[in-house]
Amino acid sequence: MTEKEKEATLPSKKDFSEWYNELLRIAEIMDVRYPVKGLYVWYPFGFTIRKNVYNIIRELLDKDHMETMFPLLIPENEFMKEAEHIKGFEDEVYWVTHGGTSPLDVKLALRPTSETAIYPMYKLWVRSHADLPLKLYQIVNTFRYETKHTRPLIRLREITSFKEAHTVHATWQEAAEQVDEAIKIYIEFYYRLAVPVLASKRPDWDKFPGADYTIAVDALMPDGKTLQVGTAHHLGDNFARTFDIKYENPAGEQVYAHQTCYGVSERSIAALISIHGDDKGLVLPPEVAPIQVVIIPIVFKDSSDVIQACEKVQQLLQDAGIRVKIDLSDDRPGAKYYRWEMKGVPLRLEIGPRDLKNGVAVLVRRDTGEKRQVPLENISHESKETLKVIQSTLFEKAVADMQARIFVCSTLEDVNEKLSEGIALLPWCGDKACGLQIEEEIGAGILGIPTDQEEGHKGHCPVCGKDASVKVYVARKY
Amino acid sequence: MTEKEKEATLPSKKDFSEWYNELLRIAEIMDVRYPVKGLYVWYPFGFTIRKNVYNIIRELLDKDHMETMFPLLIPENEFMKEAEHIKGFEDEVYWVTHGGTSPLDVKLALRPTSETAIYPMYKLWVRSHADLPLKLYQIVNTFRYETKHTRPLIRLREITSFKEAHTVHATWQEAAEQVDEAIKIYIEFYYRLAVPVLASKRPDWDKFPGADYTIAVDALMPDGKTLQVGTAHHLGDNFARTFDIKYENPAGEQVYAHQTCYGVSERSIAALISIHGDDKGLVLPPEVAPIQVVIIPIVFKDSSDVIQACEKVQQLLQDAGIRVKIDLSDDRPGAKYYRWEMKGVPLRLEIGPRDLKNGVAVLVRRDTGEKRQVPLENISHESKETLKVIQSTLFEKAVADMQARIFVCSTLEDVNEKLSEGIALLPWCGDKACGLQIEEEIGAGILGIPTDQEEGHKGHCPVCGKDASVKVYVARKY
Repeated sequence: MTEKEKEATLPSKKDFSEWYNELLRIAEIMDVRYPVKGLYVWYPFGFTIRKNVYNIIRELLDKDHMETMFPLLIPENEFMKEAEHIKGFEDEVYWVTHGGTSPLDVKLALRPTSETAIYPMYKLWVRSHADLPLKLYQIVNTFRYETKHTRPLIRLREITSFKEAHTVHATWQEAAEQVDEAIKIYIEFYYRLAVPVLASKRPDWDKFPGADYTIAVDALMPDGKTLQVGTAHHLGDNFARTFDIKYENPAGEQVYAHQTCYGVSERSIAALISIHGDDKGLVLPPEVAPIQVVIIPIVFKDSSDVIQACEKVQQLLQDAGIRVKIDLSDDRPGAKYYRWEMKGVPLRLEIGPRDLKNGVAVLVRRDTGEKRQVPLENISHESKETLKVIQSTLFEKAVADMQARIFVCSTLEDVNEKLSEGIALLPWCGDKACGLQIEEEIGAGILGIPTDQEEGHKGHCPVCGKDASVKVYVARKY
Repeated sequence: MTEKEKEATLPSKKDFSEWYNELLRIAEIMDVRYPVKGLYVWYPFGFTIRKNVYNIIRELLDKDHMETMFPLLIPENEFMKEAEHIKGFEDEVYWVTHGGTSPLDVKLALRPTSETAIYPMYKLWVRSHADLPLKLYQIVNTFRYETKHTRPLIRLREITSFKEAHTVHATWQEAAEQVDEAIKIYIEFYYRLAVPVLASKRPDWDKFPGADYTIAVDALMPDGKTLQVGTAHHLGDNFARTFDIKYENPAGEQVYAHQTCYGVSERSIAALISIHGDDKGLVLPPEVAPIQVVIIPIVFKDSSDVIQACEKVQQLLQDAGIRVKIDLSDDRPGAKYYRWEMKGVPLRLEIGPRDLKNGVAVLVRRDTGEKRQVPLENISHESKETLKVIQSTLFEKAVADMQARIFVCSTLEDVNEKLSEGIALLPWCGDKACGLQIEEEIGAGILGIPTDQEEGHKGHCPVCGKDASVKVYVARKY
């Protein structure tokens, strides 16, 4: 065992916050010791998870989006153009004021998000209806001068992995359809991470600055709080008017375009780590695990046969497209189990002399701990199938866990009682005053109106007693 | 044809500078109209080339390096630690001084390169000889407050695509071997881009600030200037002493580590575009071309047969792993040829009714213009083989072109005469004073000592007349 492993004791997941911080360190996801608050370093192991996760979002977007890259630095005059947008960000923006030892003529903002960097170019790129829809995205670092408590992957001053898409459409309706499409893409993305999410339309006071409306997806964390892990904004023609983005319609008229934008960040990784991990460490969905199968030779005195057999199995699995590693270190098997359980490897294969004689390997699932013997001749097929089972089991378990923590409530007392465990679903008349009072009285937030809300009677607003127009998710939010 | 294409006229490549700027625009590599000097926008087409290029460097490094990511912002106190290093960068660093409306306690530098961001962490990560060698890399944006004339992909204020590797070794000798290894990797990388490079050891006054020595690779551009497209630095234990990076050797002693760093940037793309392009536009090596084969249906009245045949060919090529596109726009074939020649697509397949009857397609090479008929039943194989031939032809042509522009000179008059065409190889005694005088008198730079320099008599230093210890490359540098 390495020195680091010897020092490592993971707190119980019941103490979620400590567990999370220690896990990031011991499993080598992020190093928090960088000498600036809110900035963290990706360990190579963590970065490999990031790579796998972002390959999935790229795969999903590349079907009908194109990837691109815009500058980080936004000149003050462009940044200041959209009044509502600035208000949303003015306390959070980092400003570059000097180049070398001289002050700059124009201050430069580090993008908190890229509307004001991208849209001056869209003004140049969009000319005719034939240029629409335009669907671009980029994966970049963005910055927020967070004054709240920062936390790796969750609340950062440098968001290292912001995937932001920006689309332009002919009509408001087409933009609305794109917002729905974006949410579908995100639900699919999180499905691939085995993370169930709730989609809801944010209340008006919580929408993106400058947007007509915002739909978001949230994951339910182990401590009962929700983590916003994706947002999609309908920008109407608000930014188009500010940045003069017009197109010539088929009738030959110059009209304003309609826009959307939508983003996800490394919070996606925070969610998947938090939801699946356990007291032994990470539990990674096979889709994103840097190592999907680890082979542990159980060796005694002369064990060249066993090593050879392990190497043969490694080759077989590799050929089957599985990410596999064999642990040939001098550590004892127990230490190896501990190490790779901590790192969340979905499947472990143990092969010892007796197994070899019987032509089998012992296959151990990380998620359930279940062990079973598998014939060596069948090993790739069995591994592949088991990885699929693990992937779907993780998702189903997470769905069941989430559903069990959504509570239908009718009064604020109900909500107060349940909110430490999860999410409340509460009738609301739709009035802003009542909404704000709900938030104040329970000391938590209205997430929004579920996008899959059914028709029918919704009960009564717990504040004013009127017929409720909707039921809303209410939760303690990260 | 689109409006943009109609407006597009590419100057002759003889006027290299204009040709370069216009090509980036017309072929949609970079948009230079972003409203800050020295910052440019990747068009999606350009970004796809970038993706392909960086996949190659990743493939080469991932064999024994690990990818990671460190913060962009470096606190002033860390940045200021290495005196020589600061001197090299102090006029070029962008400073973040404000978060929101408040001044920051500690100013933050936008990394011009990441030594001072990474090495405080290496101090924590490196403990024992068992941790060495440590070889990490990252692909990130870096910043230089350039006061010189900026140019897309070549001289930027935001380098969007800096690949920097940072390694730690037990001994000076091992670090030196890593520098050689880095240069080998870069030569291989550029070979994959069909770009020949010259490796040379920079003179002492031109090495990286804080390094023991620097070896660089340069490409020869069409205008006879050299473009530095990769550097590898031996850092000795200079940074290790500054950042206190020590390891316990097998004897149990704490000793300073030795380090290297090496980088390439989007200049790699500038080089490949400039070297291969021609008066008709881009000529992309198949390895990095976003589209490797474009299929043009030659259609008359009823042409559903032709379209069907084209779609079948597209499927065949796709199945063979070729990046293929079929142009079904309403434009005339000539307009389509023009478009895809501009975009540098290596191979064009034309299929018309008569071809179909004869069971053939016409295959046209972008690099040579050569046309030939190919049986449809053989189309994937022929396309694949021809792409390979194009890739190697481009490289061989570029090598021959470069070699013809390296001139062996013995006097400064010789050099002056040849330097407008390319590179001079000139004897030098090795004395700094003579070196600086050479640079002053010819108004150009000493690139460095070729890494593959043979033993034997080198002639006489053109300044002092003494026996030359080396021959050096002399060139006009970008």
